[in-house]
Amino acid sequence: MESFEISTRGHESLVDITGQLREAIEASGVEDGLALVYCPHTTGAITINENADPDVPRDILYALDKIAPWQAGYRHTEGNSAAHVKSSLVGSCVQVIVNGGRPLLGTWQSVFFCEFDGPRRRRFQVQVVSATKDSSRNLGVKGVSKET
Amino acid sequence: MESFEISTRGHESLVDITGQLREAIEASGVEDGLALVYCPHTTGAITINENADPDVPRDILYALDKIAPWQAGYRHTEGNSAAHVKSSLVGSCVQVIVNGGRPLLGTWQSVFFCEFDGPRRRRFQVQVVSATKDSSRNLGVKGVSKET
Amino acid sequence: MESFEISTRGHESLVDITGQLREAIEASGVEDGLALVYCPHTTGAITINENADPDVPRDILYALDKIAPWQAGYRHTEGNSAAHVKSSLVGSCVQVIVNGGRPLLGTWQSVFFCEFDGPRRRRFQVQVVSATKDSSRNLGVKGVSKET
Repeated sequence: MESFEISTRGHESLVDITGQLREAIEASGVEDGLALVYCPHTTGAITINENADPDVPRDILYALDKIAPWQAGYRHTEGNSAAHVKSSLVGSCVQVIVNGGRPLLGTWQSVFFCEFDGPRRRRFQVQVVSATKDSSRNLGVKGVSKET
Repeated sequence: MESFEISTRGHESLVDITGQLREAIEASGVEDGLALVYCPHTTGAITINENADPDVPRDILYALDKIAPWQAGYRHTEGNSAAHVKSSLVGSCVQVIVNGGRPLLGTWQSVFFCEFDGPRRRRFQVQVVSATKDSSRNLGVKGVSKET
Repeated sequence: MESFEISTRGHESLVDITGQLREAIEASGVEDGLALVYCPHTTGAITINENADPDVPRDILYALDKIAPWQAGYRHTEGNSAAHVKSSLVGSCVQVIVNGGRPLLGTWQSVFFCEFDGPRRRRFQVQVVSATKDSSRNLGVKGVSKET
């Protein structure tokens, strides 16, 4: 398992963490399997979407704010219930397929850490599991053989 | 795989199932891997959020009811389309990382079973997969060695 | 890993892909584990819900259109931000438990590929991971022994 720290900007933000995901998969030595990207914070989430146009993540935050407005008669005294709601709507984790030692992402896909009540210093974890018995990682030998 | 039964209260409810998740992970003998928590019901879901203040799960249900109101011109004759919609919004499963034989949850995170058309007697399952070849489980020897 | 191609109909659609999921699990030879169903497109998603009454998937699309309307003051110049938002709300993947070589679905559950900006020719992938060391797949011997 690999753990990463990031700093989010503004009250709500989507941070592209695709690079860290690639890094964690490479460090695992797993060639064929799956990777879980996990957010341990209850006002945060993980999502996959387009980042070629920065207006896409911006529009996602804008739409989520309409879907779960900050003020809406909530009871939670901390006043950030909308952030908790968004966390459950988007979800605290995503999985991607690991193929040839890399995340099998679509052409337009990036992986984002979402913070809905920032700015904050945050963590996320990546766990990689092999689909084959004799992965390099499991043998403790890195980069010797490639599963196909 | 472990299977659990629960009874939900009221028409909509979030039931904390973190204890059952810990139990299932312990029973698997897996020290390092991931756990899938799965809801086999189409008006239910699984989510991760805060349970320190019971107003957080209450606010989540309140917000979901605004997002997908019970009456909204649906066609499905059973009349519970809003519950099906919420099931797809929240999602029928979550994964958590298993680390040192325990779920790697954030400080404020609990795992919830959600029922959006209750009260009902419901089931959910937990499947645990090891990230290492020589887990206690895989060797059929429990608790002998710990992966690090 | 298995890859599948489908054609979606209409601007928004839910396509039942449960058959392909069963096929991919069977091809993997895994008896006890989990399967990840992954959508590599940023205007698509994967969800699990009821398909006994075709009005359920129809109501889900209808509700999602109210939750994230097509026109809502978005900035993204391609004009399909609502589809990206729905993709993040529903999520780009689901996992199911593999039990006895089959997906452990609830009585009313089907797995759907969702397209929110179609019609399009689309792909999705299924990755299966074993929960036991000596799965048929891992031994490279298919159908010889069954884990229980």
